[in-house]
Amino acid sequence: MTRYKAIISYDGYDFSGFQRQPHARTVQEELEKTLRRLNSGQEVVVHGAGRTDSGVHAYGQVIHFDLLGTRDVEKLRYALDTQSPEDIDVVAVAQVADDFHCRYAKHQKTYEFLVDIGRPKNPMMRRYATHFPYDLELSRMTEAIRSLVGTHDFTGFTASGTAVENKVRTITEARVEVDTDRNLLVFTFTGNGFLYKQVRNMVGTLLKIGNHRMPVEQIERILKEKDRQLAGPTAAPNGLYLKEIWYEE
Amino acid sequence: MTRYKAIISYDGYDFSGFQRQPHARTVQEELEKTLRRLNSGQEVVVHGAGRTDSGVHAYGQVIHFDLLGTRDVEKLRYALDTQSPEDIDVVAVAQVADDFHCRYAKHQKTYEFLVDIGRPKNPMMRRYATHFPYDLELSRMTEAIRSLVGTHDFTGFTASGTAVENKVRTITEARVEVDTDRNLLVFTFTGNGFLYKQVRNMVGTLLKIGNHRMPVEQIERILKEKDRQLAGPTAAPNGLYLKEIWYEE
Repeated sequence: MTRYKAIISYDGYDFSGFQRQPHARTVQEELEKTLRRLNSGQEVVVHGAGRTDSGVHAYGQVIHFDLLGTRDVEKLRYALDTQSPEDIDVVAVAQVADDFHCRYAKHQKTYEFLVDIGRPKNPMMRRYATHFPYDLELSRMTEAIRSLVGTHDFTGFTASGTAVENKVRTITEARVEVDTDRNLLVFTFTGNGFLYKQVRNMVGTLLKIGNHRMPVEQIERILKEKDRQLAGPTAAPNGLYLKEIWYEE
Repeated sequence: MTRYKAIISYDGYDFSGFQRQPHARTVQEELEKTLRRLNSGQEVVVHGAGRTDSGVHAYGQVIHFDLLGTRDVEKLRYALDTQSPEDIDVVAVAQVADDFHCRYAKHQKTYEFLVDIGRPKNPMMRRYATHFPYDLELSRMTEAIRSLVGTHDFTGFTASGTAVENKVRTITEARVEVDTDRNLLVFTFTGNGFLYKQVRNMVGTLLKIGNHRMPVEQIERILKEKDRQLAGPTAAPNGLYLKEIWYEE
């Protein structure tokens, strides 16, 4: 058996998320079906670094899997790319050490969240951005987002009842910019790990702050009081992208 | 009766083009269905400035139609926008003179054509750009595209057997640029009118020139010899956008 790591991108719109589950179309299952064909019919288990939710997209998801024998990685990339459904693309494949694990190996992830601020919305972006056609004061969001950078207990930004016990994570980068050409607001977050729905809850809160419906200090208060009730609504999944994963080597 | 002009955008992917036809979903029919509801059930005929083909998108299509009575244009825009299917958006509505005709009033149109030059393709752009993952020399296309500007007989770039007799048109702007952030090649054409499939045939030819499979002088030769056989293949409709329409006033 040889272990391979791959970078994949996918349009999350028609997937019930990354992780395999009964009676639902998932990225993991589609990849496993294709890899099985490329592995002489032997079952292949795909592990993903980020278990993206239903509707969430990826440009730089990292997966790993084991195949019989050793392959030319470019031929393997090409076969996996062309034999996968059209909403999954395989950007790169590399052979890795047998003990490499895409989720447990130390890494940083970058997520991006796109908000269509056009009035009306751009119909070409309706699956790829969340529409928010209301007043937004960029400077309020720019100020508020800074409080997220650093090591914090993010309990107030995750869904209640999640199994993970330690909710302390480190965000190394958090910014918001306007792409005037495309009429988009672009949020970018990089960190060593994100809790369930954390990015979407941070974005939902920042939009409320930008829209003057929460004070700029709300982020600091949520971090301090660890109360989900204080945060804004969960932003829709169609604006979220797993953009890139950076491994420490 | 009062005449209104509207600017609309739509995602052409799930439409069999703009123009009404039996047993097919078209932009015209969807708009007419909505407008009839807003017109006390009386039939409304929608005229479009550009009769875009199946799969072609629009950001700045212009339509006109007549309604009973006089309406507040922002309320009308909002009603038409929110009651139309989610792949049509209504950008603006204005009241116009009773004799205004969106297709016959003198105007210039700008079309844009997007080519995804990524290897592999961007799954989020598969409906919104044509994938061309082969070698392209930008300077060859930049040089060749200049020959299209001016007043020419474009017979060699239209589908054979079209009903229109006069095939002389004027192109005032033709350029190609690379959007490195999005890995896209962007073609832009502005002119006083375009023949059936003209833009897609020009793009198909320019891609062959960029890919060294036709000489840079091929454009001049096609214009001179008026022979469709000399041009490249028709580029796929999913990369084409009716971007803007400029009326002379």
